[in-house]
Amino acid sequence: MKLGELAAAAECSVATVKYYVREGLLPPGTPVTATQADYDEHHLARLRMIRVLREVGNLAIADIGRVVEALENDTISLNAKLASAFYALPPRAPADEPSPEAVLEQIRAFAVRHGWQIAPDAPSVALLAHTVQAARRLWGPVGPEIFDRYADAFDALARGDVEVIADAPDAADVVRQVVVGTVLWDVALVALRRMAAEHYATQRWEPDSR
Amino acid sequence: MKLGELAAAAECSVATVKYYVREGLLPPGTPVTATQADYDEHHLARLRMIRVLREVGNLAIADIGRVVEALENDTISLNAKLASAFYALPPRAPADEPSPEAVLEQIRAFAVRHGWQIAPDAPSVALLAHTVQAARRLWGPVGPEIFDRYADAFDALARGDVEVIADAPDAADVVRQVVVGTVLWDVALVALRRMAAEHYATQRWEPDSR
Repeated sequence: MKLGELAAAAECSVATVKYYVREGLLPPGTPVTATQADYDEHHLARLRMIRVLREVGNLAIADIGRVVEALENDTISLNAKLASAFYALPPRAPADEPSPEAVLEQIRAFAVRHGWQIAPDAPSVALLAHTVQAARRLWGPVGPEIFDRYADAFDALARGDVEVIADAPDAADVVRQVVVGTVLWDVALVALRRMAAEHYATQRWEPDSR
Repeated sequence: MKLGELAAAAECSVATVKYYVREGLLPPGTPVTATQADYDEHHLARLRMIRVLREVGNLAIADIGRVVEALENDTISLNAKLASAFYALPPRAPADEPSPEAVLEQIRAFAVRHGWQIAPDAPSVALLAHTVQAARRLWGPVGPEIFDRYADAFDALARGDVEVIADAPDAADVVRQVVVGTVLWDVALVALRRMAAEHYATQRWEPDSR
């Protein structure tokens, strides 16, 4: 398809497509004439992924670049591709104030206790440690057990999420689906949690107003 | 307590405290001498809240300003204070491309179906609509029912969260706890979901490597 058709199919402007090509996020099309190039389904799938990362996830161009790099690296296994793409997604714990090793160890033990086998240096470990550190400054000696209820719920939910993706046709498709699903659901679950919280908070503090 | 003692109690620098006073996020202390002021427990509680919003939630100063405004507004009910502070928290759907009214209506019906009574113009409604719009561009005619499993889980979790806060000593304390808890748990639940996802994805795509 032509550049204009690609943009229309992804519901964005031609200028936006050109910008992503310039930034190296989208491969250039195959030249057809001196002024025209041809784009295919791979371009469209990539473009749709980029749009979700930008417009729903607010990802920086550099972070999307890291996802694209993992997607295009054909020298590594599917699992290594997945990990690289997945680990490129924000939020991350601030690099300039790492949590003490003892807290990181507590988080790793927490993961094991919930039956999760994850890399000891996964960014999620540092991120949860960062929130535990903040919780300690507020409430004294608490540990990751304050998140037990949420961990149990997410265990069941994540198991189901993987089943949905399991039938994806190829490796690139698996990686794209995991990345896009992660970013979309990150935002959706904040919205869902706010809805539930508003309902129960309103009931709790002003029950007669409803 | 003196300025230096306040900063030490909140584990931040004196310069940071002065910055928050200058930005109007923290009330000035009570003057004691020409060069010294006195700070109390209210200053410390406020400062601890600001630190979580900045360092865990990455909130902009302007958004923290809106939370503080709601906290200090003594002409409104506790519930109105809570709503104002709660609604000031990002993320928000982009204001420049509102979702079609039909999609917003679908989200409101989804909330009702899950038993949630929330304001029709709650930012969470627009935020979930934004994610549904993005999901449609990817997967065709889907609706908010794709989030049903997460909604059921959050219903149980939010009910428990409110019980924990219910014993807070006063209105300002309730609002602070809801705001701080929301921001801390937003980040923690992203981390927890990544942990669970990494475990099940690794199991699914390379079961023999473990």
